[in-house]
Amino acid sequence: MTYCVAIKVNKGLVFASDSRTNAGVDYIATYSKMWRFNWEGDRSIVLLTSGSLATSQAVVNAVKRDLENPAAKFNLRSGKHLHELAEYVGKLSQAEQKQHAEAMERSGSSNESNFIIGGQIAGQSPEIFLIYPQGNYISASDDTPYLQIGENKYGKPILDRIISGATSLEDAARCAMVSLDSTIRSNISVGPPIELAIHTVNQIEEPYHQTFTMNSTMYKSLQKHWTEGLKRAFNRLPRFEWEKKKES
Amino acid sequence: MTYCVAIKVNKGLVFASDSRTNAGVDYIATYSKMWRFNWEGDRSIVLLTSGSLATSQAVVNAVKRDLENPAAKFNLRSGKHLHELAEYVGKLSQAEQKQHAEAMERSGSSNESNFIIGGQIAGQSPEIFLIYPQGNYISASDDTPYLQIGENKYGKPILDRIISGATSLEDAARCAMVSLDSTIRSNISVGPPIELAIHTVNQIEEPYHQTFTMNSTMYKSLQKHWTEGLKRAFNRLPRFEWEKKKES
Repeated sequence: MTYCVAIKVNKGLVFASDSRTNAGVDYIATYSKMWRFNWEGDRSIVLLTSGSLATSQAVVNAVKRDLENPAAKFNLRSGKHLHELAEYVGKLSQAEQKQHAEAMERSGSSNESNFIIGGQIAGQSPEIFLIYPQGNYISASDDTPYLQIGENKYGKPILDRIISGATSLEDAARCAMVSLDSTIRSNISVGPPIELAIHTVNQIEEPYHQTFTMNSTMYKSLQKHWTEGLKRAFNRLPRFEWEKKKES
Repeated sequence: MTYCVAIKVNKGLVFASDSRTNAGVDYIATYSKMWRFNWEGDRSIVLLTSGSLATSQAVVNAVKRDLENPAAKFNLRSGKHLHELAEYVGKLSQAEQKQHAEAMERSGSSNESNFIIGGQIAGQSPEIFLIYPQGNYISASDDTPYLQIGENKYGKPILDRIISGATSLEDAARCAMVSLDSTIRSNISVGPPIELAIHTVNQIEEPYHQTFTMNSTMYKSLQKHWTEGLKRAFNRLPRFEWEKKKES
């Protein structure tokens, strides 16, 4: 599996992804699931992938091929709106899946992939979209300003508690890392390093990008502080009525 | 769906369950998923259920019927070991599912249920078992001293961080409530009230039992303190390198 999250706050966008890929439990590998495409002053796009690695890679390759092909009808650079880019990725994904559909059905396995695409085109607002394996897509809402793909449940409670439109980019990035870290601790199919990309609204340039391994000072410090902070919060929880009686 | 958790610590056992049942999203009801059976001085047993409500109810009814039937070959009271009780519940579950298997397959729906059974028989150690829909079962381990059924992912990170054999019964009960509350916030198929049962090791009697509605003082206070504590922990997380540069 995989876990990726994209967060949309007033100040911009945060993208985070893990790097573990597995075919069963006995073939585990490290792959980046984050792809950045940037044309300064025109558009800055981030693509996150989960699901079948073969489908994800084929879609990313098709995206790159279309960018290099002057005869391509559509590519990440030609689309006028971000939702057109989402639709384009959905179509590439569907085409790739169909090509192997019969063989996949025979083998009883799935080659479905989910994608998140986000970023900003000059003159428009930043946006994030989740693209389903069927090729259709949704955007984030003001009430739920994040999208997740892959193993999304473990890391959802902290997003639900912290993230709103007013959250700073730095806090959104920290929250994404806590969300990833909680998932990594509870599910072996999600693993480090954690990749982080941050796009500041109206700065159409290469987004800030950093990779955090288990040995990164920041990641280790964040894990330590979060564990301590949770334990402190836990120890301050109210007592049950019968405990108070016991104590008094 | 449902979410139930059982925790085994050195001092005893904690059981917690939500109370929401849904058939699709347009038929939501409140049902207890916790059943307590107690013979003071002999044995104290708690049964938690998730999955198909029809199967869960049929199994609970069969358990009660066998207890009232002097001719029953086996019942919760006659089993010498807790693992025999787990096997018995697994057999009842399989029998119930098989009875409707053909019709279920035609309708394309599932009547599978998961169960947790736990408690203590006099002279033996407290134990908890998770019973799969196939009727087989597992016990908790010293390294992972808890078992979950239903929507188990949202509430797993806090259990992984807090629970060990040395955790007090009170802390285990608080942790179960936080685990339930995180799940309730992130998944509408899990809902209050929260039921809690606490069995103290070697006290073979009716376990402590309490039901917490959304309006319970303790539940409201726990939610408030946990939210505040998490926010405090979050605000104390380390800064990114580039933030420090910005700030200085």
